[in-house]
Amino acid sequence: MKSDNPNVKGIKHMAFAVRDADTALAAYARFLHVPADTEITVFPKSQNRVALFYLGGIEYQLCQSMVPDGRFAKWIDERGGEGLHHICYEVDDIDAALAHAEAQGASLRICQACQKYGSHPHPEGWVAFLDNDAGGIEIEFMQVYTPEQLEQYQVQGV
Amino acid sequence: MKSDNPNVKGIKHMAFAVRDADTALAAYARFLHVPADTEITVFPKSQNRVALFYLGGIEYQLCQSMVPDGRFAKWIDERGGEGLHHICYEVDDIDAALAHAEAQGASLRICQACQKYGSHPHPEGWVAFLDNDAGGIEIEFMQVYTPEQLEQYQVQGV
Repeated sequence: MKSDNPNVKGIKHMAFAVRDADTALAAYARFLHVPADTEITVFPKSQNRVALFYLGGIEYQLCQSMVPDGRFAKWIDERGGEGLHHICYEVDDIDAALAHAEAQGASLRICQACQKYGSHPHPEGWVAFLDNDAGGIEIEFMQVYTPEQLEQYQVQGV
Repeated sequence: MKSDNPNVKGIKHMAFAVRDADTALAAYARFLHVPADTEITVFPKSQNRVALFYLGGIEYQLCQSMVPDGRFAKWIDERGGEGLHHICYEVDDIDAALAHAEAQGASLRICQACQKYGSHPHPEGWVAFLDNDAGGIEIEFMQVYTPEQLEQYQVQGV
């Protein structure tokens, strides 16, 4: 049985759980190739502050919870330290990618911002979370919208 | 003062600390776009077993310590879970990259395999570790050898 999931194209972004987005951004700006004046965006629905930049062609998201029981704050509390929270993989067809993963024994994890399981619309595309880490890293799938779909799905603030 | 480090070109690899390289590889092969028959390599000097593959153009290393007090085993013990141990960034000139980082307040971390601080030869290039995490992730720099340098520096087993 072929187990490789051919629907997975590559990395959409990597999301890091950090205590303070400004402090973490400053380290990236001082030691790596990231502009120090990168803007930090507030997402009111998920109650996060996020520094988003590209490094080596990869989208990094440094994610700080604005509330103590937020998604990233709880993750840091559980581990006692900051780190890579999840990798979001771009897929060409999220339904096919999820069907493949579920046929391989995967189950779905709830989207904490939207309280939904499985594929549902987010600002940039349809997303879903697996309840199966790979080497300790949470897996998110995203089917990025076409320009027409982006017009249609005006999801904001997640 | 410009703080961005222009010597950093991109990601050379991402190294994940895992309890068992076979189990972690199986998750990548079942849910993501990774061949299940990826070979697991033993590195006798550093006492690691490593599954190395490319996903979305990025080199992943799933690293398992073969001894309980190994580098990756200790990291997992400290955090209570697997995760991203470090990101190795390729630099065009490792001396310039280190000088820039140190001018920005960085200090050096020992290479646990070689017991050396700062730039020193590894199998694929000169490497050095910073003693300054970025958002909880250890930073390694590597200046990859030219083909001629690869002939000259025959470092093995790290």
